[in-house]
Amino acid sequence: MNYFETVFQEEIRKISLTVPHKLYEPVAYSLSMGGKRLRPALMLHATSIFDGSPERVLPAAMAMEIFHNFTLLHDDIMDQADLRRGMPTVHMKYSSNAAILSGDAMSILAFKYLATLKSDKLQQLFALFSSTAIEVCEGQQLDMDFETRQMVTVAEYLEMIRLKTAVLIAESLRMGALLADAGQSDSDLLYEYGINVGLAFQLQDDWLDVYGDPDIFGKKQGGDICANKKTYLLLKAAEAATGSTHIELNHWLAKSDFDPKQKIAVVIDIYEKTGVSEATRNLMKNYHDRALMALDKMTIPSESKQSLIDFAGEAMVRVK
Amino acid sequence: MNYFETVFQEEIRKISLTVPHKLYEPVAYSLSMGGKRLRPALMLHATSIFDGSPERVLPAAMAMEIFHNFTLLHDDIMDQADLRRGMPTVHMKYSSNAAILSGDAMSILAFKYLATLKSDKLQQLFALFSSTAIEVCEGQQLDMDFETRQMVTVAEYLEMIRLKTAVLIAESLRMGALLADAGQSDSDLLYEYGINVGLAFQLQDDWLDVYGDPDIFGKKQGGDICANKKTYLLLKAAEAATGSTHIELNHWLAKSDFDPKQKIAVVIDIYEKTGVSEATRNLMKNYHDRALMALDKMTIPSESKQSLIDFAGEAMVRVK
Repeated sequence: MNYFETVFQEEIRKISLTVPHKLYEPVAYSLSMGGKRLRPALMLHATSIFDGSPERVLPAAMAMEIFHNFTLLHDDIMDQADLRRGMPTVHMKYSSNAAILSGDAMSILAFKYLATLKSDKLQQLFALFSSTAIEVCEGQQLDMDFETRQMVTVAEYLEMIRLKTAVLIAESLRMGALLADAGQSDSDLLYEYGINVGLAFQLQDDWLDVYGDPDIFGKKQGGDICANKKTYLLLKAAEAATGSTHIELNHWLAKSDFDPKQKIAVVIDIYEKTGVSEATRNLMKNYHDRALMALDKMTIPSESKQSLIDFAGEAMVRVK
Repeated sequence: MNYFETVFQEEIRKISLTVPHKLYEPVAYSLSMGGKRLRPALMLHATSIFDGSPERVLPAAMAMEIFHNFTLLHDDIMDQADLRRGMPTVHMKYSSNAAILSGDAMSILAFKYLATLKSDKLQQLFALFSSTAIEVCEGQQLDMDFETRQMVTVAEYLEMIRLKTAVLIAESLRMGALLADAGQSDSDLLYEYGINVGLAFQLQDDWLDVYGDPDIFGKKQGGDICANKKTYLLLKAAEAATGSTHIELNHWLAKSDFDPKQKIAVVIDIYEKTGVSEATRNLMKNYHDRALMALDKMTIPSESKQSLIDFAGEAMVRVK
């Protein structure tokens, strides 16, 4: 187990022993469900680039991870999701009320950890964290709005995924840098890198649903297509399709009774006709390049950049 | 309109114009529902005692009021309450999902305001606010636990109302003092005063349900009795009742079909037999006296204490 995970598991154990148990048990359960701990890893990595101490950044890394899991917990209630990472969601295992209140406690707990930071930039860090946190709520609201809206533009979709996904990744990097006393300019460039990498990863997710190898990707192909999920690919196709292609797409979107395989085949065919696959790959490449351009402007040794270049490259794997 | 309310209304107006509207409209609605703005008033008062500037304390006062309204908003979902202050609750007016997410945003918004404070005690203020905020969640959890539990002790009840109600009042006072650069000892004594006044007010609430004048109190007499609400009076009666009185009390608590007037009359009779009314008044007096003792130890001029003595006295009005 890596440094963060070791400390975090001990923290989860302490939380699970805190009273009232009915409040803190769901918190510990939610935090134990795993996940890649991507945000703490990025924060610790950003700190290490500027020779910062991992111990010093730890409260912020825990705050990020707890806040991220809080958003998943409450999103699962709102989306009425039964499972997360193959395990019952908090509201299914306990109750909706337990999930609401434990989520509330997690959100506050994140700020409680943040308040233990030792830094002369505390005010800035508090402001950045709370601004970013509220942006994630705005992203979730847009995501919910889109479900019931007929028309969503590609620009609106990109703004939604920026808020819902990219900002927390980007802020993890920036805060890690600031806590290692990196300059403001380098810290902001890391944020810019993070936004672009985050967007590339989300587009990769959308693309892999259609074109990914289910054995590697771990999800059934075309799940988003069957659910009419407003992904970048669907929105782009809706914008690009004309004439009979447009009519056919709308026909399949409106159809409530269909053979999944047939719908997937037809929609993929429309994606081909409208050049959506290539458009997605191009946009991902664009974000990937912008991420590297931000790195390029940073005043750190190029060997320090390699791992970040590699990480950005992962957003392009199986897609290039 | 007083200073706080004027500024706060302008802030609510700004919030109501923020996008996405579906997120911020319910926030503005929740904050517009009124209420006494007790916590900001206490905070500003505490600051004025130590000659602090109201402008400086304003972000913390707004944070307190927004956080308090967030707890009401989420409590209303959990309690499935249709109305608050005679108006539809947020989840009734909008939707459960809107209420969950807007509440989340309010909780974070409170911290965002807090992060704008100009103070060299920012770390301490952030730590106090987040610790107190999580205590309020613990109090709500205990309150929900009690509803389904057969037995709740008086001590457990007092701990619940301390967490759910008193700590936020007390912290408002302490933070107001700290922001005016009051000493730690005086600030902590104000907190102690606030805890005791908060407990006295909650007991007064319980007492007035039974003994208050409905015309003055604005609620139907005996509402708590009909609902089997575990108030201090009921829990104390359950502890004190013996023999046939104990049997009779349990009989009426278990009865699902009853004449409200008859149930209220019988339970009040049991309260008389078990001396519960006097016990409640004595405990309120006790908290009231402890609040004044805390004030007494403070190193401020006695004329500065008078308004706080008056405020504590209000917890005893119609009860003495």
